[in-house]
Amino acid sequence: DSVRGPRGSVERMLGGSATYFSIAASYFTQVRVVGVVGEDFEEEHHSVLLERGVCTEGLERVPGKTFFWSGEYSADMNERQTLETQLNVFATFEPKLPLHYRHSPYLFLGNIDPELQLSVASQMESPALVAGDTMNFWIEGKRGELQKTLQKIHILIINDSEARQLSGEHNLLKAARAIQSMGPETVVIKRGDNGATMVHEGEVFSIPALPLHEVYDPTGAGDSFAGGFMGYLASRGVARNGTDKKAFRRAVVYGSVMGSFAVEKFGVERLRHLNREEIEARLRDFRNLIHFE
Amino acid sequence: DSVRGPRGSVERMLGGSATYFSIAASYFTQVRVVGVVGEDFEEEHHSVLLERGVCTEGLERVPGKTFFWSGEYSADMNERQTLETQLNVFATFEPKLPLHYRHSPYLFLGNIDPELQLSVASQMESPALVAGDTMNFWIEGKRGELQKTLQKIHILIINDSEARQLSGEHNLLKAARAIQSMGPETVVIKRGDNGATMVHEGEVFSIPALPLHEVYDPTGAGDSFAGGFMGYLASRGVARNGTDKKAFRRAVVYGSVMGSFAVEKFGVERLRHLNREEIEARLRDFRNLIHFE
Repeated sequence: DSVRGPRGSVERMLGGSATYFSIAASYFTQVRVVGVVGEDFEEEHHSVLLERGVCTEGLERVPGKTFFWSGEYSADMNERQTLETQLNVFATFEPKLPLHYRHSPYLFLGNIDPELQLSVASQMESPALVAGDTMNFWIEGKRGELQKTLQKIHILIINDSEARQLSGEHNLLKAARAIQSMGPETVVIKRGDNGATMVHEGEVFSIPALPLHEVYDPTGAGDSFAGGFMGYLASRGVARNGTDKKAFRRAVVYGSVMGSFAVEKFGVERLRHLNREEIEARLRDFRNLIHFE
Repeated sequence: DSVRGPRGSVERMLGGSATYFSIAASYFTQVRVVGVVGEDFEEEHHSVLLERGVCTEGLERVPGKTFFWSGEYSADMNERQTLETQLNVFATFEPKLPLHYRHSPYLFLGNIDPELQLSVASQMESPALVAGDTMNFWIEGKRGELQKTLQKIHILIINDSEARQLSGEHNLLKAARAIQSMGPETVVIKRGDNGATMVHEGEVFSIPALPLHEVYDPTGAGDSFAGGFMGYLASRGVARNGTDKKAFRRAVVYGSVMGSFAVEKFGVERLRHLNREEIEARLRDFRNLIHFE
């Protein structure tokens, strides 16, 4: 990624949904990543994942350049403009899961073509819990394929505008219920600096975002949220039958914690150098933020 | 007010900041209202306040018509367009406090010309706690007068766009700190369907809004919030020294509770027919909404 914003700009740093997700989840569980990179994926990039104990056997290296995105944030950070998207090696990506990945009990389908998401899901041996993400591009352009993929997803983790677009409902409660009727039993709606809301087992859980003094780079906050959310559920061995409502609520808070770290420096710089104590301290910050008697 | 929106429209119903505030606060404490109405203020309007035990001795009745506002909400309820504003008897309003009002320990300065707010404050005998509201019109047009008024206000209760405009800071933490430097020790930021955030005694408290199935009329939600907030503080005898952090946090929740009721029907219809049990049940709804272990 290259990112410009009111707090500065950084050129050609390590980015990508899978990177943010993997690093965030790595504080909770063993992560196995699937993806594709080109010849410009340097050893220093690879080592960021390896240092976090992420298994990269599913990271395919092929001739050509790695997917590249550059964007610019508005002065208030609430809007961003994509300056450039180069699909590069991603254009012909066909995800193939290493054999030892296929029995993983937890699967997160990052935001790619829903047909590829379905292909990944079909390579797995009945995972206990499948979560996934999507975006406006697929909601508009591949709704039929997306509907099929949604039937394989237990937890959909998307942002508020995507939830509204997918469901055709502005009211987020109605949007979540409409999405549940498409397949996912649990809907987690990321609302940026307005927090996160989850509809799960007939209950609604909502927390505000942690107010931060400085935001450097919002890129990857949503992927880091998903990583914290899934990483925590995996660490607790939670299954889809969802009897563990407490764990699902706490997963939303850990997701918010990891999202809040992600934005405090450019790229993955803050996220990759955390320790468990900092994560627990920030969980306490969330608890103090919303506590009332 | 006359209000149009996606759930219907109602013509010429009882409205106004003071009305919403007074009714919301009346569930917690004795309210004394100051304001002006015209000859079209019917006995049925008056009785709405009297039924809630609101003292209307400070409600001046003068020749002419009552202030009138009409507006239309967008399909998603997140934007509204003012169709008509008739100041009428409000144009020459000079608030005069009845003698027995002047020793009231709690004062809320509704959203009027900051010079009039200052005039009301100066008629009071050192109240324990003064809260106030303002809006973009005064921030733009009467900043100097507003700055003077802010020095008399302990708690400023405004919405997020007003906080940003007043402070020149987009980041809400920085905005709140900048506003504190203008006078108010406590800043409460109303964020509509994104909840509310308070900066008080060096702490930040934030809660999401309660997700509602149906919103009929957002008019008066912010005034109802302020009424619930101040009404609760008054009921607890809280003073500005703010040693009672718990009460301030709970006041934000009661404010949010009253705001959530206000929007469920047109005008004050939902708000005026509540009972204390419904209010406590909704406080529990907020507790369940944000609860995690």
